[in-house]
Amino acid sequence: MISQKVWQSELEGRRAKVWAIIEDAGCEAGIVYGSADQPGNFRYLTNFVPTMGEMWGIVTGPAAMKCVLNFQWELVSARQHSGFDDWVGEFDTLPAVLARLETQAPNNRVAVVGLDRMPALAYRAIKSSLPDTTFLDIARDFTKLRRYKSDLELDLLREAVRRTDEVMEAVRSELRPGLTEYELAAKILYDFHSRGTTELAFTPLVMSGNDEPVLVRDPSERKLQMGDSIMVDIGGTYEGYQADVTRTFVLGEPNANQQRAWDTILQAHSAVLKRARPGVTCSTLHEAAVEIMENAGYHLPHRIGHGIGLATSFEWPSLDTETGLLEPGMTIAIEPGIYEPGVGSMKLEDSLVITEDGNEVLSKCSTALEV
Amino acid sequence: MISQKVWQSELEGRRAKVWAIIEDAGCEAGIVYGSADQPGNFRYLTNFVPTMGEMWGIVTGPAAMKCVLNFQWELVSARQHSGFDDWVGEFDTLPAVLARLETQAPNNRVAVVGLDRMPALAYRAIKSSLPDTTFLDIARDFTKLRRYKSDLELDLLREAVRRTDEVMEAVRSELRPGLTEYELAAKILYDFHSRGTTELAFTPLVMSGNDEPVLVRDPSERKLQMGDSIMVDIGGTYEGYQADVTRTFVLGEPNANQQRAWDTILQAHSAVLKRARPGVTCSTLHEAAVEIMENAGYHLPHRIGHGIGLATSFEWPSLDTETGLLEPGMTIAIEPGIYEPGVGSMKLEDSLVITEDGNEVLSKCSTALEV
Repeated sequence: MISQKVWQSELEGRRAKVWAIIEDAGCEAGIVYGSADQPGNFRYLTNFVPTMGEMWGIVTGPAAMKCVLNFQWELVSARQHSGFDDWVGEFDTLPAVLARLETQAPNNRVAVVGLDRMPALAYRAIKSSLPDTTFLDIARDFTKLRRYKSDLELDLLREAVRRTDEVMEAVRSELRPGLTEYELAAKILYDFHSRGTTELAFTPLVMSGNDEPVLVRDPSERKLQMGDSIMVDIGGTYEGYQADVTRTFVLGEPNANQQRAWDTILQAHSAVLKRARPGVTCSTLHEAAVEIMENAGYHLPHRIGHGIGLATSFEWPSLDTETGLLEPGMTIAIEPGIYEPGVGSMKLEDSLVITEDGNEVLSKCSTALEV
Repeated sequence: MISQKVWQSELEGRRAKVWAIIEDAGCEAGIVYGSADQPGNFRYLTNFVPTMGEMWGIVTGPAAMKCVLNFQWELVSARQHSGFDDWVGEFDTLPAVLARLETQAPNNRVAVVGLDRMPALAYRAIKSSLPDTTFLDIARDFTKLRRYKSDLELDLLREAVRRTDEVMEAVRSELRPGLTEYELAAKILYDFHSRGTTELAFTPLVMSGNDEPVLVRDPSERKLQMGDSIMVDIGGTYEGYQADVTRTFVLGEPNANQQRAWDTILQAHSAVLKRARPGVTCSTLHEAAVEIMENAGYHLPHRIGHGIGLATSFEWPSLDTETGLLEPGMTIAIEPGIYEPGVGSMKLEDSLVITEDGNEVLSKCSTALEV
């Protein structure tokens, strides 16, 4: 576990940077909103996310933050994680948020982060209660901070991936005909939680069988059979940082369709890894994978990958559309996949960090197909 | 599993009722927005929730619905669950939502459900793309539909609670000194998932020890010891419907403080059950519990309970503040709790349905304190 002192210093550094952005925008206060599905911006400043509900942070100085949750049950944990005391929980958050805002903003400019998630009714109420205030959306500058991972963040991600690797190796050793998808999903959860990983990046995906491939579905009572493609997509976390790793297993010797698809996935994977280095436009990673897969007669029905950090799927960059450049310290997951009748759902996903001269693959668990 | 035919008939009934509300409001289309943390309104019409992201439903007739997700990975499951085909998934949902809205609303009135969660930026974009349209918030009438559970909904809730009872009885049989909270949480997840309950209402709570009681915290590496209060709060689900059940266990003979606190909890619980019947004001349930607990010298630091259904904590009614009346077919969870040094965290929570002449407690697992 990271000591409270280390976290304090990390959080103070982040809050100072955010305060500089707020001041640069000519504002004397900032609102940082976090929703249950996208709590990352809020967590970035507080190292805390409630088990449910919404999060309001009111920033009024480089070291001054007040937070409002819509649930009062976790204030003790919130204070411990964040290192400051001004937390309240009210089922209806608005009066508490407004009370904290109304005493601030003497020059009537307030910066806002999270309008892509802040509820429309709440924003309307805030604006009408402060009719002379101008609200400035600073999300673009704020979220850029999250793109570059600090040494601490890289350590946390490394540990999240290590825990995920460990569970994936356990999965490999546990696969056998007759095991249901339910049981396999249950074992994965057991393995993570019993070893202390009690927060997962997402619900583990377990999909078996070759005839009805889909990208995502819930686990079922289906029993694993010899010859099955079995796709397992899991993400452990460590102190909020989220891994994203997928392996595909075949019980017994892969058939020709499975082998050809997997070889293509490996080629696409390798081409993307070769390209993943500083100065490269993000979307060219997607293009590189698509080219290889289409030349082999396959279709990639989703983007090749996305950022990882305090989130996975919604972390910048979305590798198919982002035209910005990769830089050292950025962290991404790449996931070539093929989903075809006869082949099943096959995907290979690694978590990696962009380094000065290329990249480092953090996920080390075996990519061997046959079990 | 409930057959697709039964679900179709249930969903058609719900959509017809919602369409009647839209028409009564003089509108010719409706938007139903669901967020990852409060997907219930969307799920009520579609029987589907994605594993992540936002949900937009555009209702244009009693049997006409189009849906937009911000993730395209689950469209196959969405079509199966909802029984209709018009689903799309786009990382940026707005263009697809606007395209579906712009061909509707000839009289320029659109009903909206979910402004308490719809992102401010999205609502602003919708309003500016349809400048002549009036938007009417019909959330109040819509959400009233969810208060009265149909026979199907009661059956689903009953099964969700049965599955939860089963896991709680397993917990009771597995408790022993030396087991860590991590392992106990892991066993709970294993028990639910291996038996086919792959969606939980919330992350299971496992809190042990008598000296540092809190309302909610993450499981830890702490090992169970003789004399510990061990609180376990879990909620299985069945086809979307969510149970909420808590039991507290003491390893060995309870000490005098634990016994006195538990007796008070049982008295408060019993007083609330006696009062829970049609025609009673919701908030009087809270008052009844507070009176008993304060007379015994304890403080109830949270509300006595809340509705259950497609949600738990955020389901209507919030039993401390709601001034409406209980009616037959409404479903609630009641949860008296005491959190004091020397006593630990002790809570007893049952799921129940209001019947014509009182209530029926759905959760049947033992309330015995000593293990």
